[in-house]
Amino acid sequence: MQGIEKTLIRRMNDLADPSCLDLGLGELRFLTPRAILDHVKENLDGWKLGYTPNEGYAELRRLIAEKSHFPVTPDRICVTVGAQEAILAVLMVTVDRGDEVLVPDPGFPAYASLVRLAGGEPRGYPLRPEAGFRLQADDVLAAVTARTKAVVLNSPNNPTGAVYGESELRALADGLRDASVLTISDEVYREISFGAPPASIASVADFGGRCAVIDSFSKSFCMTGWRIGWCAVPAELVKPLASFHQLSVTCAPAISQRAAIHALKGAADEERRRNVETLRVRRDLALKCLKEHTDLEPLLPEGAFYVFVNVAAKRVPHGGSLEIALNLLAKEKVVTIPGIAFGERGEGWLRLSFAAEPEAIEEGIKRIGRFLAG
Amino acid sequence: MQGIEKTLIRRMNDLADPSCLDLGLGELRFLTPRAILDHVKENLDGWKLGYTPNEGYAELRRLIAEKSHFPVTPDRICVTVGAQEAILAVLMVTVDRGDEVLVPDPGFPAYASLVRLAGGEPRGYPLRPEAGFRLQADDVLAAVTARTKAVVLNSPNNPTGAVYGESELRALADGLRDASVLTISDEVYREISFGAPPASIASVADFGGRCAVIDSFSKSFCMTGWRIGWCAVPAELVKPLASFHQLSVTCAPAISQRAAIHALKGAADEERRRNVETLRVRRDLALKCLKEHTDLEPLLPEGAFYVFVNVAAKRVPHGGSLEIALNLLAKEKVVTIPGIAFGERGEGWLRLSFAAEPEAIEEGIKRIGRFLAG
Repeated sequence: MQGIEKTLIRRMNDLADPSCLDLGLGELRFLTPRAILDHVKENLDGWKLGYTPNEGYAELRRLIAEKSHFPVTPDRICVTVGAQEAILAVLMVTVDRGDEVLVPDPGFPAYASLVRLAGGEPRGYPLRPEAGFRLQADDVLAAVTARTKAVVLNSPNNPTGAVYGESELRALADGLRDASVLTISDEVYREISFGAPPASIASVADFGGRCAVIDSFSKSFCMTGWRIGWCAVPAELVKPLASFHQLSVTCAPAISQRAAIHALKGAADEERRRNVETLRVRRDLALKCLKEHTDLEPLLPEGAFYVFVNVAAKRVPHGGSLEIALNLLAKEKVVTIPGIAFGERGEGWLRLSFAAEPEAIEEGIKRIGRFLAG
Repeated sequence: MQGIEKTLIRRMNDLADPSCLDLGLGELRFLTPRAILDHVKENLDGWKLGYTPNEGYAELRRLIAEKSHFPVTPDRICVTVGAQEAILAVLMVTVDRGDEVLVPDPGFPAYASLVRLAGGEPRGYPLRPEAGFRLQADDVLAAVTARTKAVVLNSPNNPTGAVYGESELRALADGLRDASVLTISDEVYREISFGAPPASIASVADFGGRCAVIDSFSKSFCMTGWRIGWCAVPAELVKPLASFHQLSVTCAPAISQRAAIHALKGAADEERRRNVETLRVRRDLALKCLKEHTDLEPLLPEGAFYVFVNVAAKRVPHGGSLEIALNLLAKEKVVTIPGIAFGERGEGWLRLSFAAEPEAIEEGIKRIGRFLAG
């Protein structure tokens, strides 16, 4: 547990007060869809609310498998306490002391912390701004060593909003086919994309049974607080994963599992589509405001709800990304997440969340422009 | 993760079919109290269901501290995904590779598995039938070595139903006062006791700040499937524990935390009292049936919902406790948990649960008597 500290994301949020404009949000602020809330209220009295099967209700695992974008059987699926527990569980049953796990840089900081927690050593592989931060198979393959046990992918990506290209994922799958390296594909933002459905390495022919796919209902159905996610793992990991999961949390919450069943039956699909459209409008608003009020050149977010902007040119007067973010908070009361929170290669960038209300996006970016010009 | 296998408890339950009489139950079958269900239904629409603070809602932590039987401040409390996550989290931030943790034998088998998961080595300390399986301080103190990092206590006890005596707990606290050994007091059955409120080592003067107390709403409020528990830890463990908790599950489920707040405000106290009275009646029924239908001499359960019976004299014709339990299941369709599931010193015993319906208790014990006589 040594060396695992509060993330910069958490620290930035702790520094904020309610009067701040919050462009640091890591979750949607939409309500959980009405159909799901109503379903819970109508059925709560009739549900058994004792322990569920450790790996989740059979019906839920069957629905997850059925709706999946890659071929998977229900027995390979374990329902977890959000994606977070799923990533930890997969790492715990994969990583031995001293093993290396490749994680994206920039990338979600919990990956590196979870690898350390599991006894392994995280090693960053580069995501490059010149490639729109999309995965480049060669960069991953070049980082693989004899000690590499797993590679973490994340598309749509946090913090960049990038969606990885199908041909690069296929190239990576081909490159890893003969290696005993587990691919861990974190797809929690999968349902929030603004173009074609995101490609996934799990959909590459004959590869779906070889990778661990992580997903959750948190982002797709606005259910972060319900703590409900899942992972699909290769057959040989099913038993150890179930053991870890049982020991660490017993099972995912019963009510949340019931709600997830209802969600997967399509009850909230229309509301979910509307939410994605709302996010598209907010994304476009953020881009428009960045153009109007700043001279920053943002990446076009293809998915998730973040726009990653390069503030490196602003360093001389303003310092690194952390100093910029701290000053923005102190002087303009705008919460952003400094790129350094996501790894060395995030330095020089800021993550702005467009999960915020339009007014906050507009006024927040206006203040960012004022601050950077000042 | 090596060596962590499906527990015998789980295996026995997996072998059972719905036509079996289930005296293997590890949870109450009472409904979650009406007041809690109604509260959720009435308020669900108004609650924010996003991430809660990692350590739990401030109001919940305050209420837990206020209602606690030992002096504790809210900042020392972390709300967890049931007691299971709490025990894992405490062990993860306490145990280094190779450390020893003393666990009760017989005792809840997850303790040893969780110690191994955290990288430590479990060592059993004896709970002795001649002392009614109540803690004997000298037995624990004699087992402490330079490598001992923690001692797990569990009162009321699973599987024996024993409640530990106050003087022995005080003697243990005195013996450990100068040692750098963490006491982990698992009190999940605390509210289910049939005599005076159970003593706790956390209530021994000046000791509450030195031990980790584990509790949950699962047994006390019939909320196993809600996955909501908590731990109180010494000040120096607060930060590492919060880090582990955030990394592994982010936070406990929001709805369950809201329900727990309502429970602690007293809304379900009357129903809880009735449940304990129902369990007392069932306990007495189980004891009466054991007297009538068998020649076994059960221990009087002072808490929890288990009666531990010595079947050692039956070994010659019937084999060990596992063989007896398997044969009981195969021939009489009665689920029991073999004592060996709880450690070497559980061998020769069977755990019968009186969480079952009275009819199942009566008929199940009748069949046990028939089987053992046959």
